[in-house]
Amino acid sequence: MVIRKATIADFDAMWRIFQSAIAAGDAMPFADGFTPETFRAHWFTSQTAYVAVVDGNVAGMYKMGANYPDLGSHVASATYAVHPESQGRGIGRALVDHSLGAARSEGFMAMQFNYVVSTNLPAVGLYRKLGFDVAGTLPKAFRHRDLGLVDAYVMYRFL
Amino acid sequence: MVIRKATIADFDAMWRIFQSAIAAGDAMPFADGFTPETFRAHWFTSQTAYVAVVDGNVAGMYKMGANYPDLGSHVASATYAVHPESQGRGIGRALVDHSLGAARSEGFMAMQFNYVVSTNLPAVGLYRKLGFDVAGTLPKAFRHRDLGLVDAYVMYRFL
Repeated sequence: MVIRKATIADFDAMWRIFQSAIAAGDAMPFADGFTPETFRAHWFTSQTAYVAVVDGNVAGMYKMGANYPDLGSHVASATYAVHPESQGRGIGRALVDHSLGAARSEGFMAMQFNYVVSTNLPAVGLYRKLGFDVAGTLPKAFRHRDLGLVDAYVMYRFL
Repeated sequence: MVIRKATIADFDAMWRIFQSAIAAGDAMPFADGFTPETFRAHWFTSQTAYVAVVDGNVAGMYKMGANYPDLGSHVASATYAVHPESQGRGIGRALVDHSLGAARSEGFMAMQFNYVVSTNLPAVGLYRKLGFDVAGTLPKAFRHRDLGLVDAYVMYRFL
């Protein structure tokens, strides 16, 4: 597996992974109406995107950048997604690890996840293993496709 | 005092209030580089803005809208600002009260503030009085102009 900066040539593969992630309705707030143009703006304009390439294919991705401008710009945030057929192989962990290194090397002081769905146990468990604490619980803040309203967490760690 | 929806005719007065708010460096993350164009996008495009008019002048304002799209769109968020010369007269409280009513009438289930500077005691106290709890603490997440790195709170209440 190689993790490298994404280029616009990765766009189609990334968009497919993103569509799979939102189709599940269990981790990201976005639904069917999300457009490729918005995806492009979020992933290629406002933050830096990386991809995990396995056997020549984009198997996962993340984006990372400042969570707030100016007086909050010392705290990073990141979003991750792994292709459904590539899950369970450590790609998610490799992406989070890589993002922590990238955030450190860009001078960020901490990393914050604003909206981790509490029932997404693989993600919550992984983030805990990698040093994140639950900084806050947002009651019933996420409308899970199967479970209805569930809590979301704000997770945080210093770098 | 009348609180009503903002129109583009209020723009100059609102922009001056916003500039005062960010000049203080004690409550909002934005700094000098913030442009009127970005202010217009934040306050007139992506959310609904209201103004408090006192003696014919815009003395305060807020914007309110969904904190996340789609699966998170049942939770609102809001941002408030009061002209420095009009503070201490209950305008902030009236704005928050009004925003809670507006959020209820638009069908939101809860209101979340993502980034309340912990040392902004008037705001934190007001939000607590109006039913908000601290849902989370973001350690050293705000670079206060005078105090350096201070905590920020995520505050939350059901409607």
